Amino acid sequence: MELSRFGQRFARYSGIIELMDDLGDALSENPDLIFMGGGNPGRLPEVEALFQQRLDDIMADPNERHRLFGIYQSPQGDLPFRQDLARFLHQQFGWPVGPEHIAVANGSQSAFFVLYNLLAGEMADGSRRRIHLPLTPEYIGYRDQGMCDDFFSATRPTIDHLDDNLFKYRVNFDAMELGPEVAAACVSRPTNPSGNVLTDGEMEELDSRCRAAGIPLIVDGAYGLPFPGIVFEPATPLWNDNIVLALSLSKLGLPGVRTGILVAREEIIQAYTRANTIVSLACGTLGPLLARELFRTGEILDLSRNHVAPYYRHSANEAVEEFRRQLAGLPFHIHNPEGAIFLWLWFEGLPITSRELYQRLKQRGVLVVPGEHFFIGVEEDWPHQRECIRVSHAQPSDAVRKGIALIAEEVRAAYA
Amino acid sequence: MELSRFGQRFARYSGIIELMDDLGDALSENPDLIFMGGGNPGRLPEVEALFQQRLDDIMADPNERHRLFGIYQSPQGDLPFRQDLARFLHQQFGWPVGPEHIAVANGSQSAFFVLYNLLAGEMADGSRRRIHLPLTPEYIGYRDQGMCDDFFSATRPTIDHLDDNLFKYRVNFDAMELGPEVAAACVSRPTNPSGNVLTDGEMEELDSRCRAAGIPLIVDGAYGLPFPGIVFEPATPLWNDNIVLALSLSKLGLPGVRTGILVAREEIIQAYTRANTIVSLACGTLGPLLARELFRTGEILDLSRNHVAPYYRHSANEAVEEFRRQLAGLPFHIHNPEGAIFLWLWFEGLPITSRELYQRLKQRGVLVVPGEHFFIGVEEDWPHQRECIRVSHAQPSDAVRKGIALIAEEVRAAYA
Repeated sequence: MELSRFGQRFARYSGIIELMDDLGDALSENPDLIFMGGGNPGRLPEVEALFQQRLDDIMADPNERHRLFGIYQSPQGDLPFRQDLARFLHQQFGWPVGPEHIAVANGSQSAFFVLYNLLAGEMADGSRRRIHLPLTPEYIGYRDQGMCDDFFSATRPTIDHLDDNLFKYRVNFDAMELGPEVAAACVSRPTNPSGNVLTDGEMEELDSRCRAAGIPLIVDGAYGLPFPGIVFEPATPLWNDNIVLALSLSKLGLPGVRTGILVAREEIIQAYTRANTIVSLACGTLGPLLARELFRTGEILDLSRNHVAPYYRHSANEAVEEFRRQLAGLPFHIHNPEGAIFLWLWFEGLPITSRELYQRLKQRGVLVVPGEHFFIGVEEDWPHQRECIRVSHAQPSDAVRKGIALIAEEVRAAYA
Repeated sequence: MELSRFGQRFARYSGIIELMDDLGDALSENPDLIFMGGGNPGRLPEVEALFQQRLDDIMADPNERHRLFGIYQSPQGDLPFRQDLARFLHQQFGWPVGPEHIAVANGSQSAFFVLYNLLAGEMADGSRRRIHLPLTPEYIGYRDQGMCDDFFSATRPTIDHLDDNLFKYRVNFDAMELGPEVAAACVSRPTNPSGNVLTDGEMEELDSRCRAAGIPLIVDGAYGLPFPGIVFEPATPLWNDNIVLALSLSKLGLPGVRTGILVAREEIIQAYTRANTIVSLACGTLGPLLARELFRTGEILDLSRNHVAPYYRHSANEAVEEFRRQLAGLPFHIHNPEGAIFLWLWFEGLPITSRELYQRLKQRGVLVVPGEHFFIGVEEDWPHQRECIRVSHAQPSDAVRKGIALIAEEVRAAYA
């Protein structure tokens, strides 16, 4: 079968696809594997009960039921949903946001596919522009989304060593250049994979550097602010007309409903909506219907603050303590767990690649994600790229503890 | 804001986007408009009750509930769903189909975006290949999905005049050429917009011509076989390893859940799945969970045959009769209503364009879709392209009757 250029690029057996296949195969061969690899959120009974109640309410109302099943959502997303969300953002944070600044997506992955390719890649004049990642490692899912090579550039962060085997990445503003070949900058906050939360100061500097360069700053808030709010350090949600804020219902416990949300100036929302109409026609109704009431009442913040964030704060702290116990004496570092649902471990001078470590761990019955794939846009040879793994702590704590013990054994064996 | 080539193409103010904006604006300014424009299915209480029951069952089972809300579906689609669907297709039609031949999409629009661009457009050697439409007019939603100009080619059909102001398009096999510049052929069956159902003979000829040319035949069954089965003439569902069959749950009454399904040989499914992983990560869980049981029990066929098809057969017949009454004496033709949820009207020698007719009808309070946009891939000047409109008959019959009266008045005025 002959594939187009697009086909050869998007259907190739890339590292990510291989990894996902491998994870899938491993799980189907051994369902007892401890799954610390993917981004599935933990199961929070109170949160699930709330969505269950909301769905029962929808089903009990013939109009709402018909809106769920039987009507195409408008391409930009249901207007009442966008109105309620805009009002929420305005009331809570004072942002000058109306429904015209909001668009719905079938998950934020597909929002990023459209958004990135609207802005970067081949330009009309034949030149190429890139998405710049001010702090890499960044989300693995961006990696293959560009329609041409060298779609991303990145600034290698500086590393601050903190107490108790912790470290923190910092944006190296001295090294960051936003030249004419950069179409937009993008950060996830908290960062997937590292759980780093860019400080308010870093965000302000990024914002002003992007404005000066005349490019949008894309902020991936899939784990962040204002919801699901999986952020353990003081941090202020930021939006203005130069920021594209991408949000998601997934980490609230709804990855199955595929609802992503973009908040941006109208010009960007319109371009996105047109492209998404051609690509997807319309988005699923379930997420907006489940969440609308939570925005109307402001309950989404209680949910984030009182249920979602505490769950992961606790699991992160437990996992860090357990790793410290188990890895004692080894040259390990853990990125300061400031948010999201992962720990990011750095085994300095690890004698094997993290890819090899991943394979050995799979044999032992625990799945993690090797760090290599997160260093997007990094050209230079930097051993650090092969010394890290991403470990989810979203699963029940017994499983997490067992997984950590197995990881520690294999890491110890690798250093031995 | 500077947009990439992709951005300029996909975010431009194309005819389709203009039309959709216009429809949206018209509806928000006048919610009493009779909406005969879009593809929203009719509301069938028995079918809705069945999905409601199924959703209640899901919510009552903690595991199923968790699968609905809290777990990412695998990129190819939930394995048990694909197994049940494959078994259904095998048992009912004898097709040699397993779960490896099936992939799930967030609606068939997004499946087509990925599929078309995998196959056609710029090739690695710099040449270009096209999607060929053996019978145009074809689905308006394909129109802008290609990543380069001249993405589609088409064969202009022959027209058979039937009794009682009816006509039928036929594939003009003598004129159809599937040269090396053709990547795949695609037909919707029944055709959106015309409600034409390609005969079994036409399908066999298309199948054999595509095989001879070494290209896949894509069959868009969104309205067709085996489900939702909105087909009013004898027709056999067709699948083999050279056919990509695209199915959808939308016209069963579930447009809001965005579930498309591809059935194709493994090589195509794998390429699609990889690309869709990058573009969308995963698909929504609601559609597969609602429908799985219907495939397991075979109930999907009863639903299609005893509820869905009869509803539209009835509404189509009523609408045809009403148009005949109202348009009496005018040089009108109606495409033989063989399936789908639209009538396709041809006003021979209409003194105004169908676009102008659409505008006048909007003023009068009824929305239709002008026919121009469905003639995709047709280069030549063919007045027929500007003499047709697509009219949905899915709304309640009172509204449809009122709409038809308004259409007839305006058409009569245009000819006067």
